[in-house]
Amino acid sequence: MRKILKNMTQNKSTSPGTITYIGDEKQHNVKIKMISYNDTAIDEFDVTEPDKMNELKTDKNKLYWINIDGIHDVHLLEKTGNTFNIHPLTLEDIANTTQRPKYEEYDEYLYYVIKMIYFDETEKIIKNEQVSFILTENLVISFQEREGDVFEPLRNRLRQNKGRVRKMKSDYLFYILIDAIIDNYFLVIEKIGDNIDVIDEALINNAEKQMIHKIHELKKEILHLRKSLWPLRDVNNALYRMESSFITGDIRIFLRDLYDHTIQVVDTLETYQYMVSGIMDHYLSVTSNKLNEIMKVLTIFASLFIPLTFIAGWYGMNFKHMPEVDSPYAYPVIIIITIGCIIGMIFYFRRKKWLGKSKQHKKKEK
Amino acid sequence: MRKILKNMTQNKSTSPGTITYIGDEKQHNVKIKMISYNDTAIDEFDVTEPDKMNELKTDKNKLYWINIDGIHDVHLLEKTGNTFNIHPLTLEDIANTTQRPKYEEYDEYLYYVIKMIYFDETEKIIKNEQVSFILTENLVISFQEREGDVFEPLRNRLRQNKGRVRKMKSDYLFYILIDAIIDNYFLVIEKIGDNIDVIDEALINNAEKQMIHKIHELKKEILHLRKSLWPLRDVNNALYRMESSFITGDIRIFLRDLYDHTIQVVDTLETYQYMVSGIMDHYLSVTSNKLNEIMKVLTIFASLFIPLTFIAGWYGMNFKHMPEVDSPYAYPVIIIITIGCIIGMIFYFRRKKWLGKSKQHKKKEK
Amino acid sequence: MRKILKNMTQNKSTSPGTITYIGDEKQHNVKIKMISYNDTAIDEFDVTEPDKMNELKTDKNKLYWINIDGIHDVHLLEKTGNTFNIHPLTLEDIANTTQRPKYEEYDEYLYYVIKMIYFDETEKIIKNEQVSFILTENLVISFQEREGDVFEPLRNRLRQNKGRVRKMKSDYLFYILIDAIIDNYFLVIEKIGDNIDVIDEALINNAEKQMIHKIHELKKEILHLRKSLWPLRDVNNALYRMESSFITGDIRIFLRDLYDHTIQVVDTLETYQYMVSGIMDHYLSVTSNKLNEIMKVLTIFASLFIPLTFIAGWYGMNFKHMPEVDSPYAYPVIIIITIGCIIGMIFYFRRKKWLGKSKQHKKKEK
Amino acid sequence: MRKILKNMTQNKSTSPGTITYIGDEKQHNVKIKMISYNDTAIDEFDVTEPDKMNELKTDKNKLYWINIDGIHDVHLLEKTGNTFNIHPLTLEDIANTTQRPKYEEYDEYLYYVIKMIYFDETEKIIKNEQVSFILTENLVISFQEREGDVFEPLRNRLRQNKGRVRKMKSDYLFYILIDAIIDNYFLVIEKIGDNIDVIDEALINNAEKQMIHKIHELKKEILHLRKSLWPLRDVNNALYRMESSFITGDIRIFLRDLYDHTIQVVDTLETYQYMVSGIMDHYLSVTSNKLNEIMKVLTIFASLFIPLTFIAGWYGMNFKHMPEVDSPYAYPVIIIITIGCIIGMIFYFRRKKWLGKSKQHKKKEK
Amino acid sequence: MRKILKNMTQNKSTSPGTITYIGDEKQHNVKIKMISYNDTAIDEFDVTEPDKMNELKTDKNKLYWINIDGIHDVHLLEKTGNTFNIHPLTLEDIANTTQRPKYEEYDEYLYYVIKMIYFDETEKIIKNEQVSFILTENLVISFQEREGDVFEPLRNRLRQNKGRVRKMKSDYLFYILIDAIIDNYFLVIEKIGDNIDVIDEALINNAEKQMIHKIHELKKEILHLRKSLWPLRDVNNALYRMESSFITGDIRIFLRDLYDHTIQVVDTLETYQYMVSGIMDHYLSVTSNKLNEIMKVLTIFASLFIPLTFIAGWYGMNFKHMPEVDSPYAYPVIIIITIGCIIGMIFYFRRKKWLGKSKQHKKKEK
Repeated sequence: MRKILKNMTQNKSTSPGTITYIGDEKQHNVKIKMISYNDTAIDEFDVTEPDKMNELKTDKNKLYWINIDGIHDVHLLEKTGNTFNIHPLTLEDIANTTQRPKYEEYDEYLYYVIKMIYFDETEKIIKNEQVSFILTENLVISFQEREGDVFEPLRNRLRQNKGRVRKMKSDYLFYILIDAIIDNYFLVIEKIGDNIDVIDEALINNAEKQMIHKIHELKKEILHLRKSLWPLRDVNNALYRMESSFITGDIRIFLRDLYDHTIQVVDTLETYQYMVSGIMDHYLSVTSNKLNEIMKVLTIFASLFIPLTFIAGWYGMNFKHMPEVDSPYAYPVIIIITIGCIIGMIFYFRRKKWLGKSKQHKKKEK
Repeated sequence: MRKILKNMTQNKSTSPGTITYIGDEKQHNVKIKMISYNDTAIDEFDVTEPDKMNELKTDKNKLYWINIDGIHDVHLLEKTGNTFNIHPLTLEDIANTTQRPKYEEYDEYLYYVIKMIYFDETEKIIKNEQVSFILTENLVISFQEREGDVFEPLRNRLRQNKGRVRKMKSDYLFYILIDAIIDNYFLVIEKIGDNIDVIDEALINNAEKQMIHKIHELKKEILHLRKSLWPLRDVNNALYRMESSFITGDIRIFLRDLYDHTIQVVDTLETYQYMVSGIMDHYLSVTSNKLNEIMKVLTIFASLFIPLTFIAGWYGMNFKHMPEVDSPYAYPVIIIITIGCIIGMIFYFRRKKWLGKSKQHKKKEK
Repeated sequence: MRKILKNMTQNKSTSPGTITYIGDEKQHNVKIKMISYNDTAIDEFDVTEPDKMNELKTDKNKLYWINIDGIHDVHLLEKTGNTFNIHPLTLEDIANTTQRPKYEEYDEYLYYVIKMIYFDETEKIIKNEQVSFILTENLVISFQEREGDVFEPLRNRLRQNKGRVRKMKSDYLFYILIDAIIDNYFLVIEKIGDNIDVIDEALINNAEKQMIHKIHELKKEILHLRKSLWPLRDVNNALYRMESSFITGDIRIFLRDLYDHTIQVVDTLETYQYMVSGIMDHYLSVTSNKLNEIMKVLTIFASLFIPLTFIAGWYGMNFKHMPEVDSPYAYPVIIIITIGCIIGMIFYFRRKKWLGKSKQHKKKEK
Repeated sequence: MRKILKNMTQNKSTSPGTITYIGDEKQHNVKIKMISYNDTAIDEFDVTEPDKMNELKTDKNKLYWINIDGIHDVHLLEKTGNTFNIHPLTLEDIANTTQRPKYEEYDEYLYYVIKMIYFDETEKIIKNEQVSFILTENLVISFQEREGDVFEPLRNRLRQNKGRVRKMKSDYLFYILIDAIIDNYFLVIEKIGDNIDVIDEALINNAEKQMIHKIHELKKEILHLRKSLWPLRDVNNALYRMESSFITGDIRIFLRDLYDHTIQVVDTLETYQYMVSGIMDHYLSVTSNKLNEIMKVLTIFASLFIPLTFIAGWYGMNFKHMPEVDSPYAYPVIIIITIGCIIGMIFYFRRKKWLGKSKQHKKKEK
Repeated sequence: MRKILKNMTQNKSTSPGTITYIGDEKQHNVKIKMISYNDTAIDEFDVTEPDKMNELKTDKNKLYWINIDGIHDVHLLEKTGNTFNIHPLTLEDIANTTQRPKYEEYDEYLYYVIKMIYFDETEKIIKNEQVSFILTENLVISFQEREGDVFEPLRNRLRQNKGRVRKMKSDYLFYILIDAIIDNYFLVIEKIGDNIDVIDEALINNAEKQMIHKIHELKKEILHLRKSLWPLRDVNNALYRMESSFITGDIRIFLRDLYDHTIQVVDTLETYQYMVSGIMDHYLSVTSNKLNEIMKVLTIFASLFIPLTFIAGWYGMNFKHMPEVDSPYAYPVIIIITIGCIIGMIFYFRRKKWLGKSKQHKKKEK
């Protein structure tokens, strides 16, 4: 099971606003990429000296997108915080990868945190990563846990000046980044939907023993996703309705669309949750049906033979004085009684509808 | 299982407002029908050159209903969008058949999307299709996934000038279209209700093995319907209460009625959901009762014969020195012991109320 | 199962406001009774010519109560509608017996629809019927599905001038009619409560096989009632709080009382719902306990005798060279081994607390 | 089961405001006690002539508490109503012991009704009784179903002038009476909590058959309590927030405390509800585990002996021509085969982890 | 089970505002520690004479934190109450360790009560203790049940003047104390999360009998935590939004952070609740699967041998006149029939997919 709370207790005794990295251990180097653009030009370079970030960000007519891969470098976070006037509590949140989605408005910036959940096409696994955004008037800073993200197509659109992104303000960039993350949720959800389909269809043909573990895993996966996505509904609804100096009226219509997508994701996830629990019930019923039929066969078999075996045993007794044993008619009579017994019981079982059904069932199978 | 999310991931990396068809693959040709009418006259023709749609829509004193069958033609959607000033985000939504029901107000038009669920009388199957509406002052555009809809009676009423439709504005046409869709929900829901009745009654007589799959299918169908219809409650409530230039006061009373019908549909669906889960519980109990009775019969049978078989086996031993075997009274004594054993056990089972009930039960059945 | 949606699909293709009777087929004649009264006088007569209803309703100083038994006569409904200015949508609702409880305010009247559920003392069955009310300044019209209602005691009070009804306005008559309907819910609910009691007590003594069907029936009955009564909470709450020209301040206190009764009914129904599902769980546990005990007896019996039967069978083998068989001590030794086997197993079962408990249990029963 | 709805149908056909006693039948006499007090003096006497109650209530500087034990005397209620201007609807509610907790403000008084649930220390049973309060400026009337209440300590405090009660107004007396009732809920809830503890611990050691009935009884008791207490949350919250001439600002702080206690009671009850259903699940799992183990023992036993018994039976056949039987090595060979069979099966069961675990389990038990 | 309601009934008959200690019995002495500090200086001393507490608190330029370990000393509480003008109802709440989290604003102070749940590193157990806070302009009083708390790191930060605490007002101290408590919740929740992981993984490999008790214990633990933490959501949300003279605007941003942490804790707890009930379902399914397989083995075994044993028994009968017995071909024929029987049944079981699967399963295990 992926842990929900990663070493949270590390920061147990620290003062509020102390920046502590809470997440998986990381060794790789931090990478800072800055893209500055306006309608006519675009520049892209790696930042190696974080102290000089602000100097680079000189031109008021340009928009800046700084992407930082690696939030485990606490000193870098502090420097960035100082450079752009980010509140220590915000920095603490950025470094803590166990946040629920939320946004917070400060005087100087808007802080937004979300889970990036995407299907890594090369490694063929689902990846889960926390992304924080700082939005100011002409700047978006994105903080990621590690390299690799879902923003590559977006960068290409920026470079090629496709769509309206180069003509809009920083809030549109901000929106388009979140939109890319939410669009990727659909992929993950579709994978889960496919899994549900496969299990659901498999159940009708055959309820395997291993299936219960698969259903349980699916249930847990959906529960984890739900935990990450559920709060997003309220967050994106509030974002769309908020009065803020960082969100211009022009992109409200886009934020409404974003909210719509969010609802759709959460809605589908909820339906999946109902489905999986329906599949669970179905599995249990199918299993219990199987047990029932096995019991029926056992009962019929055992019940048919138990009295016969008794009769056979009875005349296997070695008493000297058993008059029947010596009679020449005894054996045929016993044969007739035995057959009568079998017929009687089959008749009884048929009336009870145990055996009859079993036969009908056989016919159906043919 | 019908898929909830159709190839959603297609549009993963596109810019917001990019129109991408998301739905089942389609080959058939797009058909555009335009009906223009006022109180006195009605015209009906197929539009073959979509570019000229706006030219056709010349007379301010007439109302226009343009029906487009086929939303997979992205270029057509773009042209239509340009002609009638439809926002790219709206066009994106129209082309994406995985929308939840919603309405969105823009400056130039009202956008409304709903699922058309209807029982196709010729093919005898339930069909599911997304319909989008664009409502302006004197125009309604309806976008459907494919040919065939529930609007035919309505077209007849238009042609024959039945009811008040030819006297009212475009918002009444808009209302009457949605009303036709919601009225068709009742049919589908009635089919489900009939199914529930059939299964429920079948259960009392006999709990078949296949029934569990039917119940599960029913459960899934209701879950799917619920996903499509649930949001409609809020949508139609808001529609009825909204202040909009596209909705005149005259039809508010009709929208209230529409909302009422919506609630009724959703309400019934919810009751069905409870019913099906009640049937599930009932099925499981009936099944478990059956197992119980089978076990009881097995126990009684086995328990009656097990000691007898032992006695018979005992005197089947070939020891040279078994004094009882030689006694002439041995066999009658053993017969008496055997009968005593049977009577004692029957008495015990009766006291435990296992056998007694079974007999009472037989009497009841007669 | 009583159907929730009666032939709803009949009106699938009609224009809104078209009056179509939706309900059970009816042949009996429609009866219209009019009572006109004021503080001093009361008149009661059957209306045979519906056209003249309005003429009869001449005296502004009198209050009129028109009761119509039979809503399947669509023409009568239309005439009534014309006479009293009732909106076509309201008439459509009156004729459709699948309404949820609701009220709607129009300029000329207040429309209120409710389910009359009552225990018919003569036929000893629960009846279910839709009643619609039209309330204007000096008139109440009640529409019923068929003859026979819960208003008889109320009519007597009117005739005998008991209580304050003859001194109050039409809204009090309206209130008192609904109050009579809601008071009758208590009777039905009490019947259900008695049923729950009977089943609950029966369960402790003995869990019969048929009981599961009774519990299921009870569950369905409560579900149906809930569907009819649940929306009434909101309706009556809104009625009590509404600002309307048809509801005078004098009866607000009575409407609060009505709302109180409604809550009490719904509340009790909800408790019954929990109770029935508790009984279901209890039944299943009792059943599963029974299975457990049966299994225990089988195990003990079978396990005791299986090794003994093996021993007996062993020495029943006919090998020529079995040294034990010839020994004179063999038989006593085998007897001792057999007894030892039995004692050992009883000891084992006691330690496992299977047999010991069973004995304690016997003692308890004495 | 205690009935939730007592003969409610009695008042089916009466006019609103008709006072009808609804509750258990009563024969005992009604007792009316009046306590009049101010800061300096206190008088206590039995009222024998209810008509003169108002005359006794003469001194405007004194506070009066009239306690009426017995609400089945409808005439007394009417007289009291006339004396203190109580609305007929209120009197109807007082006489109906099936009320949910509520308060209603009238012009002349505040009406409050609550269930008194207390553990009778002498009879050692839980008692349940409806108490109604009428609060006016200098008067509190309490109506009880029968003699015996939870107010005795409070009377002593009044007599001994302990606490602030003699210095405060009638609303404080009103508050202190309700507080006494709610404090007694804790006792009942504690009894239930103790019961839950006992059953929960018993389950780990041994799941007895009778336990299921106890859990079911507990569940029902909690459900009943919940029905009585749940609405109290809203009632006491509204009471604390209400603007009323009968509630002075001085006691608002006390009403907030009352509300707090109410939440605490309801909260604990809810937790108990979860607990009991957790215990139910636990019980069922333990029971099912037991069945599992019994089945395992049966399987191992039966499976071990079934082939052996077959072998023994085989060589018990009386065929003339069975070559093996005559061989002197046959018997030892069969013994070896038998032992091999046993070892093989034990090995198989161990690999399946059925037998091995059973042994580990034995070790654990030591 | 830890009791939810400790001897609550003690205060059954006391007047509101009477301070009664409700909690575990305590013998240890009460300890009062006072810390007075400002930006430049810090003083720390034990208070031995509680009467003089207020004299000590002389300097208006200093902030005071009084920590009282031991709330069972009712007289001390009274003295403290008198010294600092604390309302008797507040004192009653402080002494009652069964409070739900809440805050209450009085004119002179803010009262806040919370559960301190922490993992005692030395004793390795989870401790649970009620902490009350009184916040005034320059004073924070904290009341604890016993010695030992989670504030030690905080005291060190105070002493060493780390962070901003010495520069801020009393509300920041108040915030920082609550923050320390909530940070400790994460530790406890992490322990529970680890437990869930361990059980969840153990289930896939092997469903032990004892596990059901562990899951039940976990469920109860989470239920208890939920009861303590759930109300904290609303409390801390209200605290962050409240307009109060005791909470300055400067710390609002910190209270928002506090609220965020609270939601995160409650959220995780809720997810754990779902998880544990998912594990419960999984456990039951795994167990039922096991039973199924055991039944299958029994059925196959018994069914294979039952007819064979009958055949063997049959020819063990001692009838004089059994023609087959004497034939020299009888024995071989019987052997062939027996083998045919076995093959036929194996074939039947394979077709029923009982045996075949079992073999596939074996292969998978290798």
